[in-house]
Amino acid sequence: MTTCKIQCQLKYKIVQATEFVFLIQVAHHSDQTIIEEQLTFNPPIAWREFQDSSHQNRHIRLHVEPCDHFEVHYSATVERHPAINVDHQQNLNEVVISDLPDEVLPYLLASRYCNSDLLVDMANRSFAWMEPGYSRVKAIEQWIYNNIFYVSGSSDQFTTATDVLIHRAGVCRDFAHLGIALCRALGIPARMVVGYVEIEKFLPDFHAIFEAYLDGGWVLFDPTRLAPVENMVRIATGIDAGDVAFSTYYGEIELIKIEPIISDKLDD
Amino acid sequence: MTTCKIQCQLKYKIVQATEFVFLIQVAHHSDQTIIEEQLTFNPPIAWREFQDSSHQNRHIRLHVEPCDHFEVHYSATVERHPAINVDHQQNLNEVVISDLPDEVLPYLLASRYCNSDLLVDMANRSFAWMEPGYSRVKAIEQWIYNNIFYVSGSSDQFTTATDVLIHRAGVCRDFAHLGIALCRALGIPARMVVGYVEIEKFLPDFHAIFEAYLDGGWVLFDPTRLAPVENMVRIATGIDAGDVAFSTYYGEIELIKIEPIISDKLDD
Amino acid sequence: MTTCKIQCQLKYKIVQATEFVFLIQVAHHSDQTIIEEQLTFNPPIAWREFQDSSHQNRHIRLHVEPCDHFEVHYSATVERHPAINVDHQQNLNEVVISDLPDEVLPYLLASRYCNSDLLVDMANRSFAWMEPGYSRVKAIEQWIYNNIFYVSGSSDQFTTATDVLIHRAGVCRDFAHLGIALCRALGIPARMVVGYVEIEKFLPDFHAIFEAYLDGGWVLFDPTRLAPVENMVRIATGIDAGDVAFSTYYGEIELIKIEPIISDKLDD
Amino acid sequence: MTTCKIQCQLKYKIVQATEFVFLIQVAHHSDQTIIEEQLTFNPPIAWREFQDSSHQNRHIRLHVEPCDHFEVHYSATVERHPAINVDHQQNLNEVVISDLPDEVLPYLLASRYCNSDLLVDMANRSFAWMEPGYSRVKAIEQWIYNNIFYVSGSSDQFTTATDVLIHRAGVCRDFAHLGIALCRALGIPARMVVGYVEIEKFLPDFHAIFEAYLDGGWVLFDPTRLAPVENMVRIATGIDAGDVAFSTYYGEIELIKIEPIISDKLDD
Repeated sequence: MTTCKIQCQLKYKIVQATEFVFLIQVAHHSDQTIIEEQLTFNPPIAWREFQDSSHQNRHIRLHVEPCDHFEVHYSATVERHPAINVDHQQNLNEVVISDLPDEVLPYLLASRYCNSDLLVDMANRSFAWMEPGYSRVKAIEQWIYNNIFYVSGSSDQFTTATDVLIHRAGVCRDFAHLGIALCRALGIPARMVVGYVEIEKFLPDFHAIFEAYLDGGWVLFDPTRLAPVENMVRIATGIDAGDVAFSTYYGEIELIKIEPIISDKLDD
Repeated sequence: MTTCKIQCQLKYKIVQATEFVFLIQVAHHSDQTIIEEQLTFNPPIAWREFQDSSHQNRHIRLHVEPCDHFEVHYSATVERHPAINVDHQQNLNEVVISDLPDEVLPYLLASRYCNSDLLVDMANRSFAWMEPGYSRVKAIEQWIYNNIFYVSGSSDQFTTATDVLIHRAGVCRDFAHLGIALCRALGIPARMVVGYVEIEKFLPDFHAIFEAYLDGGWVLFDPTRLAPVENMVRIATGIDAGDVAFSTYYGEIELIKIEPIISDKLDD
Repeated sequence: MTTCKIQCQLKYKIVQATEFVFLIQVAHHSDQTIIEEQLTFNPPIAWREFQDSSHQNRHIRLHVEPCDHFEVHYSATVERHPAINVDHQQNLNEVVISDLPDEVLPYLLASRYCNSDLLVDMANRSFAWMEPGYSRVKAIEQWIYNNIFYVSGSSDQFTTATDVLIHRAGVCRDFAHLGIALCRALGIPARMVVGYVEIEKFLPDFHAIFEAYLDGGWVLFDPTRLAPVENMVRIATGIDAGDVAFSTYYGEIELIKIEPIISDKLDD
Repeated sequence: MTTCKIQCQLKYKIVQATEFVFLIQVAHHSDQTIIEEQLTFNPPIAWREFQDSSHQNRHIRLHVEPCDHFEVHYSATVERHPAINVDHQQNLNEVVISDLPDEVLPYLLASRYCNSDLLVDMANRSFAWMEPGYSRVKAIEQWIYNNIFYVSGSSDQFTTATDVLIHRAGVCRDFAHLGIALCRALGIPARMVVGYVEIEKFLPDFHAIFEAYLDGGWVLFDPTRLAPVENMVRIATGIDAGDVAFSTYYGEIELIKIEPIISDKLDD
């Protein structure tokens, strides 16, 4: 069990009146407990939180009028207690589709960024011969790690899983999209997880990984290998990057600063 | 108010054990009342119904072992009483994004088939100059009707809204995808609606149209102009065709017959 | 018959040693006579001219070492005497493929930017019903003019004819690519023509249009309608923009200035 | 030196009058000498041969009226004497672009199937760190062999080099397209070569490989590894599959039989 401290600062110039939906608060999830958290806006502004029916993500919604400086500040203290048992994981099985819970089925569908329908042949050629289960998803993770370069700026908000395969480069969200798409193409439910994690030598940024549904539960995988998955503090879970962006906005803004920092406190 | 009778027959050869999710039952929706309905499988088989949390669609789920003939038969008597007031519609406004209900926001996001993010420039060039409101969505509907050819077999399960723009041809689902994508690109929430409708001179098939969010409610549009929208009996509502397919299956099958028939009974 | 004066200035910063191939000299072509021309480089540098076997374009090739200012200056006096007879053009027929000269066949093939193979269905749906001949190519030109927006910066060096159909915007080379692709899709040989033309209210730039093979000759079309085709002074002819770029280079440069100016002298 | 015998039979049903251009005759090339050859059509028909100015490929052109059976039969005896010296090849260098002959420059351009412009980043990430020269192109060949599956029917006439990267499968022409595109992306001129080769356990078919320009000459590579490159008898050389198809036709036909057979005669 580890206690960690999160500090997230976002700074914008608001060029035209803008509607924001932020996903920066730590999720209510069994792997973590929020000890305390604080969300402030400068200048102060009316906002509200709502949860979507699919993932219970904690959306913050607000409307900002034009101004030169608009700041968002979120801080939280979180206890991480992920129930990861590596020995146990090795033995996790894939779930045959007829045994999947109804609410898990949507994670088999292709989505904007995870165009798994186009990857069915490729996924089967590359991974169908493997023993189903945890080790197969791990092989997908490894394949991505081996074959895709992590290159800042190599992708944009239009980049799909198939684009990543062409360019063989991307950032964390692209790695996750490809992992998700390959899993879905094989009939393994998979979805995106975003959160806070400390990555040495990198500027602080949000991180994106994926989780696959194995043996009745969701198991985390990180094809970037940038940090142990159990170090991540979860913000949100979604179909793909489209519904878990740290900020979705309608209007015209300039992002001046983005600085999500996580640091370990003394372990208990 | 009209009462109509639905008969839907599906016949399959089941080559390998297959998990099915059907969306063929009439939706519970304020525009229609189900007087009676009946769902039978031949050979008889265990099935269950579940509703998804996003759209309350009525999914039927079942597992079928290999056999030469597997039949699905659904019949229903439905009273249609759509609250469509044409004069009123003309005056419907678009809703500024800050006034959109939280649960409507997802209908602004790009999806697998409605890749609206790629159409922002095109949509703005073509439609941004128009007066916002019902008439603008009607202009989108008209533009699609004028510029896209209805050609059976011209598209497949991979065809996206941008593909439809390239090929300038498609079937009802493609027309709906393009309408939805253009609306979302303009900041108008839009989604897919599938249902039963009688189309003269066409073989009976499921129909797909779209609805846009205007003045606090969802308004139907059909860019194919194949039938008045108020004639449709709704089955399901979704992000795009990916989550409202009449059948989603995992296994190996051959579709032998598909025959969704709707017929008007004597008006009351 | 008109005499006109061309002044073309290009200015670069050469960051790393760069191999250039320029296509800026006026073509030897029956529609025009070069009265005099002059090509100078500053600082002076060794260069040579070669002609390709397919189009006899006048490539200028040179190698430039890094420097802060490298200038290309080309000037020419050209007599234009295009053999365009509008009455005659109206009656031009398409040539059945069996009557096409061998050397014209390559202009039926799809190319990097003119991916006509993907547009066969669309072209046939939209234009196959029309009377073959000049008026049909004119209808293609008109369709592009009506449906594609001329927007500077809306396309880049990767933009293909199908991309233009999606985005419904482009610049002159994109308009030409789409015209060429639609012609080829219908079995009409077509190719790109680049040159000097004066366009009111626009900054001076190179222009790109296309020509289609009709009744034994090549006929010019300009879907941008920015200037009469007979006003253009031809530089080069090619499969698509890939082989008629005004500059193709291998190295690292910054383009500081591009100013191709054409002005009419007193008519003779 | 080896003497081999080629027998190529094509059989068609001609549904509508069709213009054919065949490329099935053995090329005049320094690696091979045509001892004798014979081309017959059944029923007999007028035809002519022409050579294109770029590659001197031997195009056979003819017009066929509708009929149930139209047969092409080509036979040739060819002496292969490829000047391949493996020890020598190891030491071949890439040619810096300023030293490339003018007529080799077009093989650096992107083409319909070899969209090398989209692969510049990927190629540089994967191969730029390697020592330039023969061994680098060999590494590209090896990478394709390792990463792309040879699957009959996995591609079609629209499949580009980037598509092959997505699907990770293709046939010989797709392997060659990817090799060519990666070379061009690195500044190495490359082009397609098609010909006759015997491949054990495969039905006889035309084969496609590629050649890269190294140290003043063209060197053959076969990423499929299906046969030694020196065993191939060359038919044609081109930018990509678009201009070296064994048959290009305009009309409506059914291909009934395709049987290009090559067999070694007693060695001299």
